[in-house]
Amino acid sequence: MAGNSIGTLFKLTSFGESHGEGLGGIIDGMPSGVAVDLDFVQEELDRRKPGQSAIVTQRKEGDRIEILSGVFEGKTTGTPLAFLIRNENQKSKDYSHIKDTYRPSHADYTYDQKYGIRDYRGGGRSSARETVARVVAGAFAKMYLRQQGINFSAFVCQIGHLKLEKSYQELDLSLTETNNVRCPDLDLAAEMESYVKDVRKEGNTVGGAIQCVIQGLPTGLGEPVFDKLHADLGKAMLSINAVKGFEYGSGFEAISMKGSEHNDAFNTDFSTQSNYSGGIQGGISNGEDIYFKVAFKPVATLMQKQTTVNAKGEAVEMEGKGRHDPCVVPRAVVIVEAMAALTIMDHYLRAKSYQ
Amino acid sequence: MAGNSIGTLFKLTSFGESHGEGLGGIIDGMPSGVAVDLDFVQEELDRRKPGQSAIVTQRKEGDRIEILSGVFEGKTTGTPLAFLIRNENQKSKDYSHIKDTYRPSHADYTYDQKYGIRDYRGGGRSSARETVARVVAGAFAKMYLRQQGINFSAFVCQIGHLKLEKSYQELDLSLTETNNVRCPDLDLAAEMESYVKDVRKEGNTVGGAIQCVIQGLPTGLGEPVFDKLHADLGKAMLSINAVKGFEYGSGFEAISMKGSEHNDAFNTDFSTQSNYSGGIQGGISNGEDIYFKVAFKPVATLMQKQTTVNAKGEAVEMEGKGRHDPCVVPRAVVIVEAMAALTIMDHYLRAKSYQ
Amino acid sequence: MAGNSIGTLFKLTSFGESHGEGLGGIIDGMPSGVAVDLDFVQEELDRRKPGQSAIVTQRKEGDRIEILSGVFEGKTTGTPLAFLIRNENQKSKDYSHIKDTYRPSHADYTYDQKYGIRDYRGGGRSSARETVARVVAGAFAKMYLRQQGINFSAFVCQIGHLKLEKSYQELDLSLTETNNVRCPDLDLAAEMESYVKDVRKEGNTVGGAIQCVIQGLPTGLGEPVFDKLHADLGKAMLSINAVKGFEYGSGFEAISMKGSEHNDAFNTDFSTQSNYSGGIQGGISNGEDIYFKVAFKPVATLMQKQTTVNAKGEAVEMEGKGRHDPCVVPRAVVIVEAMAALTIMDHYLRAKSYQ
Amino acid sequence: MAGNSIGTLFKLTSFGESHGEGLGGIIDGMPSGVAVDLDFVQEELDRRKPGQSAIVTQRKEGDRIEILSGVFEGKTTGTPLAFLIRNENQKSKDYSHIKDTYRPSHADYTYDQKYGIRDYRGGGRSSARETVARVVAGAFAKMYLRQQGINFSAFVCQIGHLKLEKSYQELDLSLTETNNVRCPDLDLAAEMESYVKDVRKEGNTVGGAIQCVIQGLPTGLGEPVFDKLHADLGKAMLSINAVKGFEYGSGFEAISMKGSEHNDAFNTDFSTQSNYSGGIQGGISNGEDIYFKVAFKPVATLMQKQTTVNAKGEAVEMEGKGRHDPCVVPRAVVIVEAMAALTIMDHYLRAKSYQ
Repeated sequence: MAGNSIGTLFKLTSFGESHGEGLGGIIDGMPSGVAVDLDFVQEELDRRKPGQSAIVTQRKEGDRIEILSGVFEGKTTGTPLAFLIRNENQKSKDYSHIKDTYRPSHADYTYDQKYGIRDYRGGGRSSARETVARVVAGAFAKMYLRQQGINFSAFVCQIGHLKLEKSYQELDLSLTETNNVRCPDLDLAAEMESYVKDVRKEGNTVGGAIQCVIQGLPTGLGEPVFDKLHADLGKAMLSINAVKGFEYGSGFEAISMKGSEHNDAFNTDFSTQSNYSGGIQGGISNGEDIYFKVAFKPVATLMQKQTTVNAKGEAVEMEGKGRHDPCVVPRAVVIVEAMAALTIMDHYLRAKSYQ
Repeated sequence: MAGNSIGTLFKLTSFGESHGEGLGGIIDGMPSGVAVDLDFVQEELDRRKPGQSAIVTQRKEGDRIEILSGVFEGKTTGTPLAFLIRNENQKSKDYSHIKDTYRPSHADYTYDQKYGIRDYRGGGRSSARETVARVVAGAFAKMYLRQQGINFSAFVCQIGHLKLEKSYQELDLSLTETNNVRCPDLDLAAEMESYVKDVRKEGNTVGGAIQCVIQGLPTGLGEPVFDKLHADLGKAMLSINAVKGFEYGSGFEAISMKGSEHNDAFNTDFSTQSNYSGGIQGGISNGEDIYFKVAFKPVATLMQKQTTVNAKGEAVEMEGKGRHDPCVVPRAVVIVEAMAALTIMDHYLRAKSYQ
Repeated sequence: MAGNSIGTLFKLTSFGESHGEGLGGIIDGMPSGVAVDLDFVQEELDRRKPGQSAIVTQRKEGDRIEILSGVFEGKTTGTPLAFLIRNENQKSKDYSHIKDTYRPSHADYTYDQKYGIRDYRGGGRSSARETVARVVAGAFAKMYLRQQGINFSAFVCQIGHLKLEKSYQELDLSLTETNNVRCPDLDLAAEMESYVKDVRKEGNTVGGAIQCVIQGLPTGLGEPVFDKLHADLGKAMLSINAVKGFEYGSGFEAISMKGSEHNDAFNTDFSTQSNYSGGIQGGISNGEDIYFKVAFKPVATLMQKQTTVNAKGEAVEMEGKGRHDPCVVPRAVVIVEAMAALTIMDHYLRAKSYQ
Repeated sequence: MAGNSIGTLFKLTSFGESHGEGLGGIIDGMPSGVAVDLDFVQEELDRRKPGQSAIVTQRKEGDRIEILSGVFEGKTTGTPLAFLIRNENQKSKDYSHIKDTYRPSHADYTYDQKYGIRDYRGGGRSSARETVARVVAGAFAKMYLRQQGINFSAFVCQIGHLKLEKSYQELDLSLTETNNVRCPDLDLAAEMESYVKDVRKEGNTVGGAIQCVIQGLPTGLGEPVFDKLHADLGKAMLSINAVKGFEYGSGFEAISMKGSEHNDAFNTDFSTQSNYSGGIQGGISNGEDIYFKVAFKPVATLMQKQTTVNAKGEAVEMEGKGRHDPCVVPRAVVIVEAMAALTIMDHYLRAKSYQ
């Protein structure tokens, strides 16, 4: 109940602080007999890693994963799969200046209020570095689900005012990983990259959005009435640092639509002609693509002077130090996919109890 | 795990079908010693009730609540509080024509796929009538939380293209319940009502949006990293029938904002000058107002001819019968409040274990 | 977390007080498509019912079950199955004399301490009448499991000093239901019945024990390391009113055994020659019979004068009124079976997620 | 649901195999601000450690704990507390001879049936070495609870036929740790030690029992009706390797007692004159001592020839190799205390939500 687990039959419990010994987690419920592809796990981690391109934070983190249990002779055993990623290049002293300072729109104040203690080094537990555990667990979920033909494709669909207007069906999603911003529209990607560089030059940051498409899903996943598939996907996305909104299928556009436009007519093979439902009806997958969008706020740490308060309530001046992202979405693409994979994996196993 | 419970320390388990014996639920975790205000519960139910105005479904449902346990001499006892609302005016034969038909954008097909059986009368379990249980549980949560000074105010902020442009601070939220659409801007409310009537005349339906504001919340509610307060609010909202999207604080607008605009500067009493954070930082309440928006799709049942398929995959014509809402948001206002109250109540009790 | 649910994939949430409106529960996770045999459910309730023989309480309770949801056209739908048993013959005034009195070895004092309020009528929620909900849920679990060839046979194996010395293999368990004490050894049963009558004449009560045998179980049920099959069976049994101990397989006798005696040698078909393991190894069923024993204390309500205290801490005299059991085990046989069935059902569904 | 977590508000999720990289766990729900006494944790681990005396296994295991997260500047932060104990002296080749063999009364066969794969080295996940994680989590629970005045004292009360007849009140429990068998009756302890040595000389093993006393507990812990305090204690104990039975208070002796003997009369300060209830009434602590007993079977690994089968169902001869315990109870004392502490800690935090 203390909030560090997600999932029921496929459950990730994560641990770790940005500047402690390391981060990691335990996956409980990994099916046995799955061949473990550690290179794939590492590739996924590398997609999230700082320092991978000119438009992300230049911190260097090795992010090498060590599997501690649950694998024997290259296969999963069905027992808890624990993993650890040691912190290596953490510069705690970069944070000594904020020891007694509450940074605006960070979690410094709320953690202090809740716990009466605060690991101020890099945000401690509230740091987005915590998401490495999610990426690892997501990689294991994908490893299993791709055997069932289920695939996850996330990509950046907006940075600042630069918005991808094409639908995902019009795009070649294999281009996502070919550019630094991870947008499959290469012209727009170039614009976005240039824009992010400008933003960084001002010492500023900017928000963004990621779309995710899940393909190859069978019908029947999702547990009404509270654990509807999109409700669990939404919670998973909203639990990612900096996320402010979630919509699936027609999303917020449904507000101004009429029923006669919005209804997805059936074909005689039970597929649908349109897919405003986003692959989910009544909380249960219908076999069509699931697609959803996630909104991220601009990073709160600025390379500009800001006025804020310290723990005594005194006004103080502060300026970001260290190495920070001007925009989180390029590195968050793999996190969105991971959280989607965790959620689908959990519902996949849950659905098996009905068969 | 079968999906009909929500919450941890304050948990609602709901049951019932739209045309079965009745609907109801069990609240486990209701604190003891709370004076039970059944009139209030009934008022809340009446806010959701069909037939309450010209722009909602004209079905007549008594929706009288019976408390089955957990109350003794007018006070809660701390034991499970079970309640039952009998179905009264259900016309099952209104649905015999869809027995073998999968209605577009309904849950008919997915339920049949998942369970191999389908209670076709009024959608059975997938009917929005299931939300009566939520309204009751929400009323009990509110009953407790208002003693702590915590209040919930939801209202309609958009129907079709008619969008409320004022912020909630500029409005008198006590006007919400004075009009049929439940929009606190009375001019806009009149426009909306007229628009919904037009839509109904065409036999059509339209989407809408609801905003909800939570005031009087203490700091410290929310459990990082997965049970962030807004993640649980989001899941609760997304579990409501017809919901397609959720955003809190700056929401989707954060995408195009810069950090320098978006950061909420602290005052020396730790309140913030702006509130793009929506009252939550790092997943934990910071004492500011929480506000969020929920998008609803247009109702799928149309009073128009539609082509669809039956369970054999044959194309069939169908037309909505019975009595349906042209737009769900006026009746959903109390449901949004209820789900918000359930979520806050759960986190309120969870936070107590730290004190 | 408030303790009124048991199970994960097959979950019972129960409600009700002995003298309130009624008792009941919600089963969440009942598989769909199971033909509902309500006569069987009623028969099971009748095995628990007061007034069924000369040696149990002479209270009259109709204990008629009403199904509120989850069944359509005689079959389960996979949605929550709610049920209600109205209280009928409750004589609350039988309890007015104990309104301010804490009865020895009852839950009066502890409920008052925990909740600050106490429904004194017949023990309220702490009454063993709460077990009707368990019997109903157990009946539904049995209904499903008997289709898989899994059967539950509980019987009284001790009352006071009268102990069944034969093993269950030496007995004809079909004789259990032929006598009032529910002991399959008819000579011993007659002795036990006579003994219970003597105890009742003194206005006294006596303890007892029940053995339960589960047959036809597949291998592979149970989730190490914490949800071992016998750990969940043990918890289920210990949650029954008046239970003081649980042992399975060799149980407490294993203490004085040597490994060379206790080890169960394998046959070449992987069955075992002996079964000290009680059908469970490493927390997982091995396909042999599961058998366990449950110890019940003597009923705390005596038809004798006792000195006790009231809520102010003043010494008061009291004497049991109303109609009480001199020994609970005859009526508890079906409860033990029900809790065993719930536990096995839950693990049966859990095991399916591995297949 | 995969069974490797225990607790709700104070939750341990454990991982690790006896011959893998290591074992450990995550404690989620550790209150913040507790001064961490790592020496105490290590002392607790040392009480469980192999090789500590002449009557336990002579394996050498360093069992050095590393804290990975959740502690900052010597205090707990309220975030997940992860820990790791690396395996050091594991001799996997000691087990190569059993690679394809199912050892009698071990979990080899059932794990293979359940998971289709088996880490045969030292039992893998089914090894009692898994309990190191429990001891660590128990140490943290004790660290918090001793500040509340709550203490745990377990001791060996029976080995084979040698049974402690005195009640715990007649004993000086501080003597428990002064002898190799951990029995506070020093004469009996000497007899037990000598007996265990004899058993070991035969290459045999023997069962035993442990009693545990919890003192200083407030009233009000335990959540009826399913999460009764003794039901959760029972489950916790039954989840320990080799446990066959659990009883609390009067336990199995209650079977042959009459109500007039068994009832615990109140004093005017609400304490009770006797304590057959074992400190728990209606599933809720009443402020008296909680005491219970746990039965352990004899270790299944014998230093004698045994006939068994291999995975093909062929009869094979085998003999234990490696270094094994002739009797588990001396090393299990700290495990029983740990599981008791975990359970009490969880209910302590749960009870706070009522205050």
